[in-house]
Amino acid sequence: MISDRHTISEVRVRYAETDQMGIVYHTHYLVWCEVGRTDYIRALGTTYAEIEREGIVLAVADVRIRYVAPARYDDRIRIRTWLERVQSRAVTFGYELTRANGEDGARIATATIKLIALDASGSPCLLPASLVRRFHEDTPAPHH
Amino acid sequence: MISDRHTISEVRVRYAETDQMGIVYHTHYLVWCEVGRTDYIRALGTTYAEIEREGIVLAVADVRIRYVAPARYDDRIRIRTWLERVQSRAVTFGYELTRANGEDGARIATATIKLIALDASGSPCLLPASLVRRFHEDTPAPHH
Amino acid sequence: MISDRHTISEVRVRYAETDQMGIVYHTHYLVWCEVGRTDYIRALGTTYAEIEREGIVLAVADVRIRYVAPARYDDRIRIRTWLERVQSRAVTFGYELTRANGEDGARIATATIKLIALDASGSPCLLPASLVRRFHEDTPAPHH
Amino acid sequence: MISDRHTISEVRVRYAETDQMGIVYHTHYLVWCEVGRTDYIRALGTTYAEIEREGIVLAVADVRIRYVAPARYDDRIRIRTWLERVQSRAVTFGYELTRANGEDGARIATATIKLIALDASGSPCLLPASLVRRFHEDTPAPHH
Repeated sequence: MISDRHTISEVRVRYAETDQMGIVYHTHYLVWCEVGRTDYIRALGTTYAEIEREGIVLAVADVRIRYVAPARYDDRIRIRTWLERVQSRAVTFGYELTRANGEDGARIATATIKLIALDASGSPCLLPASLVRRFHEDTPAPHH
Repeated sequence: MISDRHTISEVRVRYAETDQMGIVYHTHYLVWCEVGRTDYIRALGTTYAEIEREGIVLAVADVRIRYVAPARYDDRIRIRTWLERVQSRAVTFGYELTRANGEDGARIATATIKLIALDASGSPCLLPASLVRRFHEDTPAPHH
Repeated sequence: MISDRHTISEVRVRYAETDQMGIVYHTHYLVWCEVGRTDYIRALGTTYAEIEREGIVLAVADVRIRYVAPARYDDRIRIRTWLERVQSRAVTFGYELTRANGEDGARIATATIKLIALDASGSPCLLPASLVRRFHEDTPAPHH
Repeated sequence: MISDRHTISEVRVRYAETDQMGIVYHTHYLVWCEVGRTDYIRALGTTYAEIEREGIVLAVADVRIRYVAPARYDDRIRIRTWLERVQSRAVTFGYELTRANGEDGARIATATIKLIALDASGSPCLLPASLVRRFHEDTPAPHH
């Protein structure tokens, strides 16, 4: 974590996200991280959609996720998202997922996801300067 | 059905496709229909990927599906796909899904999915003439 | 529609829900309908999770959906859910999906989904009496 | 890798698995790993479904995946699966995904996924002895 800036997002678990183990299938936690990342970028004053319109995509290059406790149908899940590392052509976000049903704040999972910037031809490129500036200057306020 | 031409595809149910009811979540049967449709078009001697490269997309406009019996993890599912109707700007496929575990050929679901042709700007357009010709002339052979 | 009672839910489109056509893949609209249905039942004063804990599941038996306009990444989608029909062993919900980006209230899709009650052995059974009573008496208030 | 035993599975990329970047959304590669793992266990002479019927589930506890090149719609993807580590209550599988379109054998991704054994109450437990024996004795033959 490069500072204590972070955003808080929240999702409610969909039936579609459960599997026959009676808990959420493991890949969906990563989709919730995407929700957190989208909110983090929005809190910086731009949007990921806007970044794409300018011709840059951020493609997932590396994922690490540890599952601590299961999420279940209809649970409220809180996603804390922060910047873990900014490089010239890549950015790594950190995530902590917790249950947010009433008093229950159990930790569900922690993850890091590294994204690399690609230009229209699919080649690695520099992160947009305006985005890097926002990474270094702006302060996301917790929201949801 | 405009003729007895059809293709047979097969998928094996993934754990990711189940839900906490212990059966496959209902939307995944429609993804299997997509597998059947892709195979049907391939059996005509072209591919859906090729159609898109020529600048036309076939977007889903209408879906009707009836669920008869549940599919379960690790089941083999057989997808029979046929042409239900060809219009100037749309094509409707029919599907029958059956279980294909050993002797078990229980019917799982039947569906019809209508797709409309859209050009690069997203406006409705004529189906590609070459595709319409294939719809009317070629004979998909069962395969999988 | 058996009355003007309905609930309003809202989702924001996830990147995971888009496909290479640049719009939302067609099955995800049905997951949003599930979000609407969950909220409708919650507005009646119970939850679908509670119904399952009592030993009854509501399995999807029939789906009809018409797609009118595409949903795109980061769009806000409003889901209006109402009761279309209540039978002894089945219930049919109606749905209208609209875009809710600022002034844009374009209709995205309309759907009906029929669910049948199944007991622990997977056999069709009567809808729980307490649920039927709620269907006939309570008045969901729009919420989200 | 604890030996050179491995299985080869193959999937064809579904349209549903792509996103608006024109490539496969990153979580679906992990579902393909599940396909590989299912096949690996089947090659040992049992099935994951059978393990669950005996009252044990293998829940995903830790995932690491590196994305090297994108998979695209209609690509054939080959999944090589092997045992990375067997512990008393956990097993870690390794995966290599490659494109298998004609001559193209480009590496798509590599991953490791650790699963822990849980009993009916959801508590960690020993891996089934019969499964551990198969892990140590049997030799999966490449198949698909």
